[in-house]
Amino acid sequence: MKIGVIGLGLIGGSLARDLRSQIHVEVYGIDSNVEHQKKAIQLGLVDDIKDIFYAERECDVLILAVPVNAIESMLPEILDRIGQKILIDVGSTKSAICKSVHNHKNRGRYIAAHPLAGTEYSGPEAALKGLFQGKKNIICDQELTDEDALKTALDIFESVGLNTYFMTPEEHDKHLAYVSHLSHVSSFMLGLTVLDIEKDEKQIFNLASTGFESTVRLAKSNPKTWQAIFMKNKKYVSEALTSYIDLLTNFKEALDSDNEELLQKYMEEANAIKRILNKN
Amino acid sequence: MKIGVIGLGLIGGSLARDLRSQIHVEVYGIDSNVEHQKKAIQLGLVDDIKDIFYAERECDVLILAVPVNAIESMLPEILDRIGQKILIDVGSTKSAICKSVHNHKNRGRYIAAHPLAGTEYSGPEAALKGLFQGKKNIICDQELTDEDALKTALDIFESVGLNTYFMTPEEHDKHLAYVSHLSHVSSFMLGLTVLDIEKDEKQIFNLASTGFESTVRLAKSNPKTWQAIFMKNKKYVSEALTSYIDLLTNFKEALDSDNEELLQKYMEEANAIKRILNKN
Repeated sequence: MKIGVIGLGLIGGSLARDLRSQIHVEVYGIDSNVEHQKKAIQLGLVDDIKDIFYAERECDVLILAVPVNAIESMLPEILDRIGQKILIDVGSTKSAICKSVHNHKNRGRYIAAHPLAGTEYSGPEAALKGLFQGKKNIICDQELTDEDALKTALDIFESVGLNTYFMTPEEHDKHLAYVSHLSHVSSFMLGLTVLDIEKDEKQIFNLASTGFESTVRLAKSNPKTWQAIFMKNKKYVSEALTSYIDLLTNFKEALDSDNEELLQKYMEEANAIKRILNKN
Repeated sequence: MKIGVIGLGLIGGSLARDLRSQIHVEVYGIDSNVEHQKKAIQLGLVDDIKDIFYAERECDVLILAVPVNAIESMLPEILDRIGQKILIDVGSTKSAICKSVHNHKNRGRYIAAHPLAGTEYSGPEAALKGLFQGKKNIICDQELTDEDALKTALDIFESVGLNTYFMTPEEHDKHLAYVSHLSHVSSFMLGLTVLDIEKDEKQIFNLASTGFESTVRLAKSNPKTWQAIFMKNKKYVSEALTSYIDLLTNFKEALDSDNEELLQKYMEEANAIKRILNKN
């Protein structure tokens, strides 16, 4: 099987690496960034670098792993030219992307997917072997995909260790806003808060304690990737942010008014998150 | 040397474990919680369980590792009775605690310390061997401590792998508010936000992605411990929370008004946190 991976960043690069290691799989990389092309070859992520037209013509399956705003513009165009081949996108938002090809004549050849895996790093150097092992994958609007195309996509995801779940694009975007996108905003703004205060307090911040490092980790993430995700999932990210800001404000008010009982209650309730984390 | 550790939780228990493994050190545990007493013996954290009066009479050094509100009330009383022995507290806030014994006749026998180490777990079961290895320790108001007592305390901290830094109690509390306490509030409230939305959305939240787990980790922390820390460091925690809420609100406004450039700018600025994290 010939697979074309469009976008050789963290997700595309990791997929390429794992797929290429399988027998009877050839992986071609497509990336507009010349540095990424070189790196991907150097790191052995792909068999060769090709252009999009070669990939559309020669590959059995195309995987679109560019930022979500680029997916939305590229997807209908590629689907126009794809015939009976298979096209999978692996973007972190799904509603706008699914809508953009909902009535496309070749909709049946397309799979809207999102493997829930990643790190705070980006680019081909961030590609990790086994990144998807034991992780979850979401496929949306699967009823609009042809049976054979869906089966091939499921086989591909399973082969890199992903367990696939199904939900609607709206469900996906809502829940990802809470469990992933909000965490990123929270982390970015936590980093900014500490940097702001640091301006006046030079010598001290080499003392960051362990708690800080884990909560601020995601603030190292790629701004371009995340700006696109936040914009594409604006409605739900904004909703999640409103709830988060409200709760932080309530907590601050309880603190300012010495309401120890309420502070304690908030934290005891938050402790219940153990239950959800242990489900994973 | 005989060391009495008062409070056998995560920090006290970990200190006891590491100190006890050293030659010529006997460690006695003091804890009002009978379950903690049993666990500490079972886990071999201490040589024996004693009461506070035995420890004050027989031990060369006492380490006070109870919640910060309890430290403030116990510290002056123990110092009354300590004579030429040495008393160290390891609480996470320092201003109120230092003030409570600032003019005490035995102030010279006391060391105000804070080892920057921990996990989200609590109790004697959470005590870890080597928890402090390579970590930072802060000592405040060291000029008020007798030279011999300070030297002994520094030796003890060094023996478990801690590197000690000095700062004023106010500096300590301000900076800890930003690099540790704010992270905890942020994490507790993130947990609560997700739990709130989950009430209506049962089936989905077994899909938490990796980003969420690291940002919400601290929401598993002990509410009692943290309520005391937040209250004792109210001024700076509230200040840090104000900055954090303001930045989150700005971010939300940029998102709601489609200001992609500003979103991008915030995240690029936040990326600079790499510099601070790499200093550690």
